[in-house]
Amino acid sequence: MREFKRLTPYREALRLLLDDLSEIPEVVEVPLDEALGRVLAGDVVSPIDSPPFDRSAVDGYALRAEDTFQAREYSPVELKVIDEIVAGEESGARVEPGTAVKLMTGSKMPEGANAVLMQEMAEREGEVIRVLRPVAPGQNVAFAGEDVKKGEVILRKGQVLRPQDLALLKSVGFKTVKVKRKPRVGIVVTGDELIEDFDEEALKAGKILESNSVMLKGLVRQYFGEPVFYGVVPDDEEAIREVIERAKKENDLVLVTGGSAFGDKDFAHRFVKLLFHGTTIKPGRPIGYGERVFIMSGYPVAVFAQFHLYVKHALAKLVGAKNYEVRVRATLTERVPSQLGRHEFVKVWYEDGKARPIKKKGSGIISSLVESNGYIEIPEDSEGYLEGDVVIVVLY
Amino acid sequence: MREFKRLTPYREALRLLLDDLSEIPEVVEVPLDEALGRVLAGDVVSPIDSPPFDRSAVDGYALRAEDTFQAREYSPVELKVIDEIVAGEESGARVEPGTAVKLMTGSKMPEGANAVLMQEMAEREGEVIRVLRPVAPGQNVAFAGEDVKKGEVILRKGQVLRPQDLALLKSVGFKTVKVKRKPRVGIVVTGDELIEDFDEEALKAGKILESNSVMLKGLVRQYFGEPVFYGVVPDDEEAIREVIERAKKENDLVLVTGGSAFGDKDFAHRFVKLLFHGTTIKPGRPIGYGERVFIMSGYPVAVFAQFHLYVKHALAKLVGAKNYEVRVRATLTERVPSQLGRHEFVKVWYEDGKARPIKKKGSGIISSLVESNGYIEIPEDSEGYLEGDVVIVVLY
Repeated sequence: MREFKRLTPYREALRLLLDDLSEIPEVVEVPLDEALGRVLAGDVVSPIDSPPFDRSAVDGYALRAEDTFQAREYSPVELKVIDEIVAGEESGARVEPGTAVKLMTGSKMPEGANAVLMQEMAEREGEVIRVLRPVAPGQNVAFAGEDVKKGEVILRKGQVLRPQDLALLKSVGFKTVKVKRKPRVGIVVTGDELIEDFDEEALKAGKILESNSVMLKGLVRQYFGEPVFYGVVPDDEEAIREVIERAKKENDLVLVTGGSAFGDKDFAHRFVKLLFHGTTIKPGRPIGYGERVFIMSGYPVAVFAQFHLYVKHALAKLVGAKNYEVRVRATLTERVPSQLGRHEFVKVWYEDGKARPIKKKGSGIISSLVESNGYIEIPEDSEGYLEGDVVIVVLY
Repeated sequence: MREFKRLTPYREALRLLLDDLSEIPEVVEVPLDEALGRVLAGDVVSPIDSPPFDRSAVDGYALRAEDTFQAREYSPVELKVIDEIVAGEESGARVEPGTAVKLMTGSKMPEGANAVLMQEMAEREGEVIRVLRPVAPGQNVAFAGEDVKKGEVILRKGQVLRPQDLALLKSVGFKTVKVKRKPRVGIVVTGDELIEDFDEEALKAGKILESNSVMLKGLVRQYFGEPVFYGVVPDDEEAIREVIERAKKENDLVLVTGGSAFGDKDFAHRFVKLLFHGTTIKPGRPIGYGERVFIMSGYPVAVFAQFHLYVKHALAKLVGAKNYEVRVRATLTERVPSQLGRHEFVKVWYEDGKARPIKKKGSGIISSLVESNGYIEIPEDSEGYLEGDVVIVVLY
């Protein structure tokens, strides 16, 4: 009877793995347009104040707020318009008591003025505007450095870039951004029973349609990597040894599915010096890792759990990504028992503050993944959660 | 004084807009590998039972569970191995009382057997295995149709495809999937004050670095679309008319930033027959929509809010996407006052069940978007929320 001598506790295995990997040093500079979802390689400092000076936030009239404090609809205040400028121009005039300067959105505030009346709110007659209501000091003015200050860190290393992050970079003058090179992730799928194309006869005879590769490619893409698929390799010791060697050379990380247990044909784990083999996670216990290679299960659900519990964190470490998970609080709609000594990965459907555990079991049951949108983790020392317990759901 | 005669309530404007748009009919068939994040064009029905027959979920020995009920470590049950098959083969043998068949993961269950003993749990000696513990009926067996049944809808129209969805499609024999064509979204940015390249002199003179285009391109990509950028157009009536006409012809949707208010140079809204112009949202009130064209603000924060409150839902309608938002429940860390009559878009930082409102105001303040990871909405009839109130956060 061959089994794992010892199951490495989940957290211990994760630490071994993360300690073994280091952030990839390569940085690539990409146009902002191609940077969505990429991971920022270093802190970004603003080269300018933004806005670079006090400016109007609207089209309207720059004025002295104090001139308008007595303005009422039945007794408007009249101001003389002493200058009119268009967008991108600057007024040389100084706003003295009783005067105003017409300007556009983004125009530099003229000297003397401390507020802007929106154009739509002014009644204009020749050189005069009538103000019907008081304007507060600072109203409709965007102050210099109000958005970001020169020298300020505006984005931090590890940020996964979103549309608004790109806008901020652009607004202070950047057209490119330095991001981490995408880690190359070799994917090797092993198993004599696997076929790639639909074949009713073969399925009847016991073959299985291989689905791990398309899933892993998608997961690798979601978590910053570039997948490289090495195809389905038969359960042949030499073939597996050869492809693992090659994939190791050509990639930052290698994922091998199948061959992680101790069947007669489980070869993959023999060709890697493993830091751990067999951990307390459920499903997915027979996972091994060493030399940047993961030896994973053959079952899609186990592979999915192994990816989220281990591989995802490895990829985040390689690129230095922060905040790469969406973790939300939820109330369980029913109890979830868990085996002591196992770190359980429980699929749930999260909606409106509630997490409903997906009951379908079995590591071949891909539909259970499809019916879920997140997972909870139940550590080794817990027998599970009760209905109504508040848990953390990681969304996917 | 020119202003909006009436602000259309948020929900009314949204309904007008969604009623005006219809789902785009075109469907494209893409390889599974290219389908991540695409929107499923129709329900998908499984052409097969999966698994196609009862099969073993592990490498091991198929047996009759009842033969093992008396098995104890100190008094093992012995079974005779009458056949051995490898992956993808089928046994012709029938498992009679006292016998077992050695098989592999995925092997068809031989007649007579109703459970599988994992190989690692069996002590083998020649033709005999010793079973040390009882095996439950059904243990380690994946039953026919257990994952999905032939004819069953396995994925629904509108699903945004995830890695596990692709795996399910592959596991029942698909290599391609029909998804909606990506809507083409024309982006037109207007404003004399805008520059595309960093230029210190120009900035000092009142110019502004344009940042809406890169943000909108990113947002459009996040929500199923393909952005087409028409560049920065000066505040010239003819130029704006021409580019809007062209963009309308070439796209499913057009986003115009700038020119939505009533300044002298706000031309854009004059060239579109608007269904509404001016709504109760804050920020972003001066938004107009008609003829598949959005006339949006010039300010990045207002544009961002307008996108999430209106454009995102329009794009989802065009492709028929479901579940395109991550909505989570959260407790507010402090009170958020809101103006009656306005539908407020409040940026928050969501973490661990709590939502912290981002105080920075001003529609030019892009850093306020960067510091947030979601928003809450406060409808017109509410004066806001108190500290401790439970709200729904839409994550971004």
